[in-house]
Amino acid sequence: MAVSEFELIKRYFYQSARAFGVNMGIGDDCALLSVPDNKVLAVSMDTLVGGIHFPRNADPELIAERALRVNLSDLAAMGAEPLWFTLGLTMPKVDEQWLEGFSKGLLSVADEYNIALVGGDTTRGPLAITIQVHGAVEQDYAFMRGNARLGDVVFVTGQLGNAAAALSVIRQELNVGKSAFSYFMSHYYRPEPRLKDAKLLRGLTHCAIDISDGLLADLGHICEESGVGAKIDIERVPVSAALNKVAEAEQIADWALGGGDDYQLCFTVPQENLAKVEQLIENGKLRATAVGEIVKGSGVACLLEGEPYEPKRRGYSHFDPT
Amino acid sequence: MAVSEFELIKRYFYQSARAFGVNMGIGDDCALLSVPDNKVLAVSMDTLVGGIHFPRNADPELIAERALRVNLSDLAAMGAEPLWFTLGLTMPKVDEQWLEGFSKGLLSVADEYNIALVGGDTTRGPLAITIQVHGAVEQDYAFMRGNARLGDVVFVTGQLGNAAAALSVIRQELNVGKSAFSYFMSHYYRPEPRLKDAKLLRGLTHCAIDISDGLLADLGHICEESGVGAKIDIERVPVSAALNKVAEAEQIADWALGGGDDYQLCFTVPQENLAKVEQLIENGKLRATAVGEIVKGSGVACLLEGEPYEPKRRGYSHFDPT
Repeated sequence: MAVSEFELIKRYFYQSARAFGVNMGIGDDCALLSVPDNKVLAVSMDTLVGGIHFPRNADPELIAERALRVNLSDLAAMGAEPLWFTLGLTMPKVDEQWLEGFSKGLLSVADEYNIALVGGDTTRGPLAITIQVHGAVEQDYAFMRGNARLGDVVFVTGQLGNAAAALSVIRQELNVGKSAFSYFMSHYYRPEPRLKDAKLLRGLTHCAIDISDGLLADLGHICEESGVGAKIDIERVPVSAALNKVAEAEQIADWALGGGDDYQLCFTVPQENLAKVEQLIENGKLRATAVGEIVKGSGVACLLEGEPYEPKRRGYSHFDPT
Repeated sequence: MAVSEFELIKRYFYQSARAFGVNMGIGDDCALLSVPDNKVLAVSMDTLVGGIHFPRNADPELIAERALRVNLSDLAAMGAEPLWFTLGLTMPKVDEQWLEGFSKGLLSVADEYNIALVGGDTTRGPLAITIQVHGAVEQDYAFMRGNARLGDVVFVTGQLGNAAAALSVIRQELNVGKSAFSYFMSHYYRPEPRLKDAKLLRGLTHCAIDISDGLLADLGHICEESGVGAKIDIERVPVSAALNKVAEAEQIADWALGGGDDYQLCFTVPQENLAKVEQLIENGKLRATAVGEIVKGSGVACLLEGEPYEPKRRGYSHFDPT
C-alpha cells in the first residue's frame, strides 16, 4: 500500500498539545510562528546520516531521541529556550514499524523539553534525518562563542568521555559488562541537553558552547572567536566512575578531551560572577566543574599536574579522510 | 587534504551583504534572528535527494538554484517575504569543483531574492540537500489553504506543464529541438518563485498554494483544508506555445494538470476582489489566469468544454510504489 506524505505525517507526527506561538503548524505551505516579545529567534540545524552518524540498524526510537536531543543542545549552548522544531526525514521505504519507533522516540523528547513539531519534509532516499530547532532568547543574554574574556574561569557541566567510550563499545574496541554497557549507551543515544543549566546560567555566563566535537575542539572554537587562549588542567576534567573502571588514565583523557558526543556545556565565567556560580554548584542546583581559565594567546593548552600535556587527538572533524 | 566543516563554510558559503535582522549568522551554536515587528515567522523545509529528486550528475549550480527556488516558492505560497535560509548539505566527499558550482548557484538565487544564508550543517553521506526558508508575513494577510470559500474564482499564475515536459525529456520519453530543450530545462531547474505576484495579491487573496505536485493535487489540498470542492475548465489552463508544439492535447493536459514542479501559484479570489485582480492582469503587472471556481462538495472536478473530463493522473505522491 502506498502511503502519502500527508497520511504519514498525520499518522506518526501529529502532536496533540497546542504549543506556544504556533499560528499554523503542519499542513500548509509554511508554518506560521510567533516569537515571544523582546526575544530573538535562535535556530540551529543538524543532519544525521545512517551509516555515518549512527548504525543503520540502530533502534529507531534511539536514533530519533538522539537526533532531537543533539539539536536541543545547541539551544542550550546559546542560552535559548526551545519552542519549535522541523524534521526532514529521508527513508529508503515506508517501514511502518520503524516509523512507529522513530516517532515514539521523537515525540517523547519533544514532550519532555516542551518543543513542538511544526513542519518538515518526508522523502524517499538513503536514511538521513535533518532537524532544525527554533528557540528564543533575549539578545543581551545570549551565550556567544566570541564573549570569552581574559581571566574568565572555564567550566564544563556534567562529565565528559562517556559517549566516546560508548562509541568504542559500538566499534567493538572496548568490552564492558552489562551495566557499564547500558550506562555508556544511554549517554551516547540519550544525551541530556543542558537546558536547565543554561537557564540557571542566564546573566552569569555570556559565552558557552556544547561539546559535540570534544572539549579541546569546542573550547578551541571559543578561543578563536574570542581572540584568546585557554588552559585546561586535565586532572580537573570530570569523568564518571564507570569510565574510570574500564580504561587507563591516558585513554580516559583522550575520550574526555578529544571524544565528542557528550553534549555537555563548556562555558566561561567572569571573576565577578564566580561566587554565584559556585553557590549554584554547592547548592546542588548546577552540576558543573571548573577545569581551567581563559588566558592570553590562542588555542587550548593542556596541563597535567602543572606540566604541559599533549593529548592524543584534538577532536572530530566531519571531513577528515578517515 | 582534509577540509574542516568550518573552512568549507567560510570558503564557499559566506555572503558579504549584511541581511535584515541577522544578529548572529554562521559561526555559533545557533543563528540569532530578529523577526520584523507585527509579523509572524513563516518557515518551510524541503529535502532534495540525489538520484530521486535530481540526477546525481546534474550541474551542481542548477541543483542549488532549484533547491533554493523551490523553497522560496513556499514563502510565496504563504504570502511571506523571504528573510533567511539554512542549508543541510550531505555529500559523499569534498569535491571542490562541485562545491564551487553549488555555492555559485545558491548564492546567486539568494542575492536575487534577498535572502541570507544564516546557518546549517555540512556532513558526509549520500548526496542530499535540505533547505529551510524563513520569511515574515502579517498574520491577517497570510495565504492559508483553508481559506477558500464558495464562489471564489480559482487562478493560476504563469503557465503549467513546462517542468513536466522537462522531466519527460530528462527521462528520454520526449525528444525536442535545442531551443525547446533549453526552455523546458530552464523551467525545471530554475522555477521562478512567485514572490512578486504574492506581494501584489496581498489582501486580494487569502488562500494560495504553490503547484509542486500538480494543479489537481495541490488544488485538492486547498479543497480538503477548506471543506469545499473545485471545478476546473481544462481549456482555460494556461500552457506555453512551446508545450503546444511538442505534444498532443491529452498529453499536454496530463502535464499541466498532473505534472508537478512548475511552482506557479494557485490562488482563490473572492468575488469582491475580482475586479482588482483582473485590473492587475490587464495592466500587465500580474500574469495569472482564471481556470475555475470553488464549489460545494469535495475534490476537484475537471471539465473539457463543459463536459466531465477524467485526467490520466492526479498528481505526485512521494511514497508511491513507482
